[in-house]
Amino acid sequence: MNDKIKPKTLPGFMELLPEEQILFNKMKEIIRKSYEKYGFLPLDTPIIEDANVLLAKAGGETEKQIYRLKKGDNDLALRFDLTVPLAKYVTEYYDKLSFPFKRYQIGKVYRGEKAQRGRYREFYQCDVDIIGDGKLSILNDAELPAIIYNTFKNLGFDEFTICINNRKILNGLFASLDLEDTSTEILRIIDKIEKIGPDSVKKELLKNINENQVNTIMQFISIDGTNSTKLQSLEDMKIENDVFQEGISELREVLKFVQIFGVPEKNIKLDLTIARGLDYYTGTVYETFLDKYKDLGSVCSGGRYDNLAEYYTNRKMPGVGISIGLSRLFFQLTDSNIISANGQSISDVLVISMTEDYEKCAEIARILRESELNVQVNLENQKLGKKFKIADKLNVKFVIIIGEDEIKNDVVSLKNMITGEQTTMKIEETIIAIKNSK
Amino acid sequence: MNDKIKPKTLPGFMELLPEEQILFNKMKEIIRKSYEKYGFLPLDTPIIEDANVLLAKAGGETEKQIYRLKKGDNDLALRFDLTVPLAKYVTEYYDKLSFPFKRYQIGKVYRGEKAQRGRYREFYQCDVDIIGDGKLSILNDAELPAIIYNTFKNLGFDEFTICINNRKILNGLFASLDLEDTSTEILRIIDKIEKIGPDSVKKELLKNINENQVNTIMQFISIDGTNSTKLQSLEDMKIENDVFQEGISELREVLKFVQIFGVPEKNIKLDLTIARGLDYYTGTVYETFLDKYKDLGSVCSGGRYDNLAEYYTNRKMPGVGISIGLSRLFFQLTDSNIISANGQSISDVLVISMTEDYEKCAEIARILRESELNVQVNLENQKLGKKFKIADKLNVKFVIIIGEDEIKNDVVSLKNMITGEQTTMKIEETIIAIKNSK
Repeated sequence: MNDKIKPKTLPGFMELLPEEQILFNKMKEIIRKSYEKYGFLPLDTPIIEDANVLLAKAGGETEKQIYRLKKGDNDLALRFDLTVPLAKYVTEYYDKLSFPFKRYQIGKVYRGEKAQRGRYREFYQCDVDIIGDGKLSILNDAELPAIIYNTFKNLGFDEFTICINNRKILNGLFASLDLEDTSTEILRIIDKIEKIGPDSVKKELLKNINENQVNTIMQFISIDGTNSTKLQSLEDMKIENDVFQEGISELREVLKFVQIFGVPEKNIKLDLTIARGLDYYTGTVYETFLDKYKDLGSVCSGGRYDNLAEYYTNRKMPGVGISIGLSRLFFQLTDSNIISANGQSISDVLVISMTEDYEKCAEIARILRESELNVQVNLENQKLGKKFKIADKLNVKFVIIIGEDEIKNDVVSLKNMITGEQTTMKIEETIIAIKNSK
Repeated sequence: MNDKIKPKTLPGFMELLPEEQILFNKMKEIIRKSYEKYGFLPLDTPIIEDANVLLAKAGGETEKQIYRLKKGDNDLALRFDLTVPLAKYVTEYYDKLSFPFKRYQIGKVYRGEKAQRGRYREFYQCDVDIIGDGKLSILNDAELPAIIYNTFKNLGFDEFTICINNRKILNGLFASLDLEDTSTEILRIIDKIEKIGPDSVKKELLKNINENQVNTIMQFISIDGTNSTKLQSLEDMKIENDVFQEGISELREVLKFVQIFGVPEKNIKLDLTIARGLDYYTGTVYETFLDKYKDLGSVCSGGRYDNLAEYYTNRKMPGVGISIGLSRLFFQLTDSNIISANGQSISDVLVISMTEDYEKCAEIARILRESELNVQVNLENQKLGKKFKIADKLNVKFVIIIGEDEIKNDVVSLKNMITGEQTTMKIEETIIAIKNSK
């Protein structure tokens, strides 16, 4: 009579063991606190939306990846990012919000991508965006690198680089060279520079465009040095194009304020090669790399966009935002042993009994909890060895053992699971010992 | 050219304004911390599961409410509770877990119920469960009321009653009277007692069963007094049925330990009329009522079940758990003005400029954030009146104003938005003033 259904989690859906989940939640919590420190308001929009609303803007690859469903007569879809729900939200509740509207949202999104290692179909995004009503000061673009800096510092990283650029520079450069129409192809060739070297890039470019154009582009991509040197070199190119010049002045302003907002020079780098999704972003763009693990790709990206909600409203709402793909980041960091879930614990202490009398256990657990400690208590008739195995599995630093002597003398035995040391003491002393070891 | 799509959120899907969301998140956080204080491990299972796995146990009403979808060849469904995913989880990862396995999960679940006020199709459940491997001590049933007590205390409630019962009492009683088959009908009649009074109940019962049976039942439902008086009255009934007697002894044990775990007598009440879903629960059952708002129904319920994962495994896994339906609770509490989102804020302070010089603003924001304050900074060229309106909307207690004088004298003006008081001081003093007022 074995008609059991085999329980299995779908491929592409992250499901963690408890100690991994504890670490994941800690990271999520650090991100949340960082976002709140910068005064961003929390949102938690539905995961299911009306398909027409959600897909107003979508098409092509995105639409193919959508989880779409019917319920009664309703055509529904699961959100595939947190930006479209934000556009919906600011349009729907426009009258009740004040602008600039600063919100963060940390939640799961859904994309039916091809399942592959480290790519998830359900994954957490952690977004902050600042939305203006009609206009939005460029200075906001300087606050986001400070949030990135603060967040990754708090996540325990020191060596990371926030790369910043402005789309107006590339757009203006191509416009000044009458190359708007071939820009995608040119960017593709430029992108190969690290692999094939500048000479080969130049040769390939010459197949597509004239020598003057190639020379300007080669001059542009050879710009190097500190952030201010780079800005100076851009000026020195004397490109007569308003968009290009606007890009320079925006970058100059942003980099100045990034510093005032507290990001050290070493963590922010003007990188003229960053473009990010050609359609969406219109000004500042960001990517973030862990210096020692560049091959992980960008761990936090974003940028400035002109018009958040154009599919819903005639009101122009420019914005700037960043996003951390937490599920993927967590996979990458644990998979590469950059962080480890080993030893993660919720409980400060496990209380166990050596006898079948559990009253003292329950009382001790209550007292410890009243002292704001996290306490698991074992109330089972299990062997002592088994109970210590549970303690190991829970990664608790302390076990409190209650036996006949402890009950008689109104004390407890406190075992430090790391040192192996075991001491008998009053419960009040136990609380101090546990708290001091935190 | 107005081809805009009207953005709208689906009916039955909770979407909150920022200050409501802040309050909601605070409640969610309090629940999370309470669950962790009792040593429960966090889980975060996928929202989408294989439909065959998820619906192994379902049927009837539940199956009709399911959000089900196809993606490629896959038959998928959104979880409708957190218990089935737990059953899946403990079976799938059995070898990697230690038992009793104590986990909490706070997450959204989906039920396509008829949309009505205060009933959601997407809603948060906050569950804790203790799962045993083969067996599970009855003493665990005493820890859950302590968690309920602690959680609702921390949510700001004093006057609430955790009602506790044991299904074995009713089952044993009906068995001793040879009434197993008509128990549903009898319970339905008993349930009317508050509306129609004991005499009418008795009359109606007599239409269905004989006088001896009716007398025993009337004796049973007239049991009253303190918890221990009730236990004594149950004993005094001298019902010769093992299940009934087991129910009494379990309740006695649980009530004794509930007290040791720190729940005051006034907050826990043995209520012999509570049955909860006839199929699922097999022992202890809980319901929780806010004393002044009983009409809200139970705000936290749960109980003991014999076999969590019988559809997935032959392994017997008894468990006991409770659940808070947070979305519904939040709606009820705000809708009845028991709690209010007015004045909820993320930021401690808003920094604004009276001039078009924002450098000092950015610097002050940085310093305040380094002191662990939550700070929003306004970098817009907006009128001062507008900036104060934003401060009102954000419910910040303080605004820091930077004008020419403040820049010149290296001070800031701190305005207390509640008292209207405005003082000029050094930034270090500002930090102390803001922190002291928290």
